Amino acid sequence: MINRRKTKTVNVGSIKLGYKNPVVIQSMTKVPTVDTPWCIRQVNQLIQAGCQLVRIAVPRRADTLALAEIIRKVKVPIIADVHFSPDRAIEAIEAGAAKIRLNPGNIKKREDIRRIIDAAKMHRIAIRIGVNEASIADYQKRQVPTQRRIALMLKEMKKYVRIFEDRNFDRLVLSAKSSDALRTIEINRMIAATFDYPIHLGLTHAGLPEDARIPSAVSLGTLLAEGIGDTIRVSAAGNPVDETIIARQILTALGLREKSGPELVVCPTCGRTEIDVIKLARRVQKAIRRVDKPLRIAVMGCIVNGPGEAADADLALCGGKNKAYIYRKGRRVSIVPESEAVTALLNQLQKF
Amino acid sequence: MINRRKTKTVNVGSIKLGYKNPVVIQSMTKVPTVDTPWCIRQVNQLIQAGCQLVRIAVPRRADTLALAEIIRKVKVPIIADVHFSPDRAIEAIEAGAAKIRLNPGNIKKREDIRRIIDAAKMHRIAIRIGVNEASIADYQKRQVPTQRRIALMLKEMKKYVRIFEDRNFDRLVLSAKSSDALRTIEINRMIAATFDYPIHLGLTHAGLPEDARIPSAVSLGTLLAEGIGDTIRVSAAGNPVDETIIARQILTALGLREKSGPELVVCPTCGRTEIDVIKLARRVQKAIRRVDKPLRIAVMGCIVNGPGEAADADLALCGGKNKAYIYRKGRRVSIVPESEAVTALLNQLQKF
Repeated sequence: MINRRKTKTVNVGSIKLGYKNPVVIQSMTKVPTVDTPWCIRQVNQLIQAGCQLVRIAVPRRADTLALAEIIRKVKVPIIADVHFSPDRAIEAIEAGAAKIRLNPGNIKKREDIRRIIDAAKMHRIAIRIGVNEASIADYQKRQVPTQRRIALMLKEMKKYVRIFEDRNFDRLVLSAKSSDALRTIEINRMIAATFDYPIHLGLTHAGLPEDARIPSAVSLGTLLAEGIGDTIRVSAAGNPVDETIIARQILTALGLREKSGPELVVCPTCGRTEIDVIKLARRVQKAIRRVDKPLRIAVMGCIVNGPGEAADADLALCGGKNKAYIYRKGRRVSIVPESEAVTALLNQLQKF
Repeated sequence: MINRRKTKTVNVGSIKLGYKNPVVIQSMTKVPTVDTPWCIRQVNQLIQAGCQLVRIAVPRRADTLALAEIIRKVKVPIIADVHFSPDRAIEAIEAGAAKIRLNPGNIKKREDIRRIIDAAKMHRIAIRIGVNEASIADYQKRQVPTQRRIALMLKEMKKYVRIFEDRNFDRLVLSAKSSDALRTIEINRMIAATFDYPIHLGLTHAGLPEDARIPSAVSLGTLLAEGIGDTIRVSAAGNPVDETIIARQILTALGLREKSGPELVVCPTCGRTEIDVIKLARRVQKAIRRVDKPLRIAVMGCIVNGPGEAADADLALCGGKNKAYIYRKGRRVSIVPESEAVTALLNQLQKF
């Protein structure tokens, strides 16, 4: 139901970014790149969690050396995150990165950028121009109004893109990140209206996971619902697997990613509820942990919406007074005491 | 930066809903309504958490009797959640509810609805027409396509609204809920385009809190960013205080609600990081728990975006190799060993 924005298609190793290609989840390793076994382990954990592209920081020469080894040993295209140093960019390209990220805020000399473009062309890899609000010199003063910040980010992007286009390089991915959800929405709408390259979405420096997930879902969700965004990275301080799980939930909510396992619909409960919905739902949640079919299972408290959600679910448990109605494919199959409700539901589950 | 949709203004007790009025957070009690002390305690916990309207279920006569007592003893307008029974609606209105919610899926007789409208008029209270996807008879069969579900919800809404308008009743609030985020976005866009009454937003039956928050943030966030939505209720199975906290986070992310306490900006960390950002951030988080000023505090790992975020923050800690730079209002005030970083930051906090 979402009309994805028309963009060029950009290959990042085996992954295609843009337009009708599925929105790709990416994350970043958070361990020292030079500790290659640890770094490879984290890349594999990310792949396991559903991450399709992994970015790795390469601040020093030792990191790009390690990068070559990591790339050889993992099964996912690797992106090198480059700041300040054009040499790191060239080294990362030669190490086999499928894409590099450049920050216009800290690699500014035209001859440096051109040198990087030529290397990327030769190796046929992609480059993300990653504008970051906090990296732009002009707003390193407080109280710069929102509209001016957005205008400056867009100006920085336009200037940088032109350097690439002047050299006929079009394997570009664009991003503009802010730690403010509204500014992130606004700048990405402008970038979407100005360019036809795929867009990488992210809310940056969003905080600890409990603070980061809602603003990330709001900003990335709003843009994705408008068809903007071809790859996303959720930023949260902590384990990158958490970032990947949040990213998956955002895409799944919008129908941009298939559900990979069962979905548990649970009514919020209210003063009408006469069975312990939460306890039952927690028990069902635990029991279906290893189920990998995309079943829809509903645990509902009363007759207001219970039968309706049951009709839409593969399996449902709908509460009455100390008893539960069990539904399979919308048809009521049994009435059992509350204490037997979960067992009865799981018996039906066996039949799938 | 969000242009709120133009609507009529509807009073719900002391609260004004619609257009330029702030988006209002509401939730629902989840304890037996007849247990009035417990119910009142939960209403007060919700108020404490930032909830501005509280809805209470009144399935039986005993509940509307209890409702009158609850309304006398709490400081927030109370909404009665009515299903199936027109008598409960009239009783709730007479008990002093500031608004009642009717479900077109289960109160259908015109003479019943007219009787309720007349009572609401006499008591000058508001009515929410709460269409619920799972309550509409026509889709109590599986595999009904999305567009047909949306069309049916809209048709149900139009039919019901006409009954109210024919009786010159315009203190209406409209809602159409689904457990699917995309359908929730779509149906609300249509309702916003069709009517000029305030809209109540919610994603229903969203699941346990860990499953509910991302789809809720995505669907409500997208609509709010488009200017749609005048009151929101996040549904999550469990304590309604959690619903209120998620609702607050959604509104705050979009600048629709002022930040009530400090905001902790934390970089996600990566292979560049040379100090333990997460540990430092957790310690700062704990130390500022009782601070109620809307300060912006940044804990950043390196020089890429550290100085930029520091420039935007009231206070910042930016990591180097085993040391930290402390910033106050964007100016660097000290360099300290990592072990003294949090203390140094908190010393600066004293000055605010």
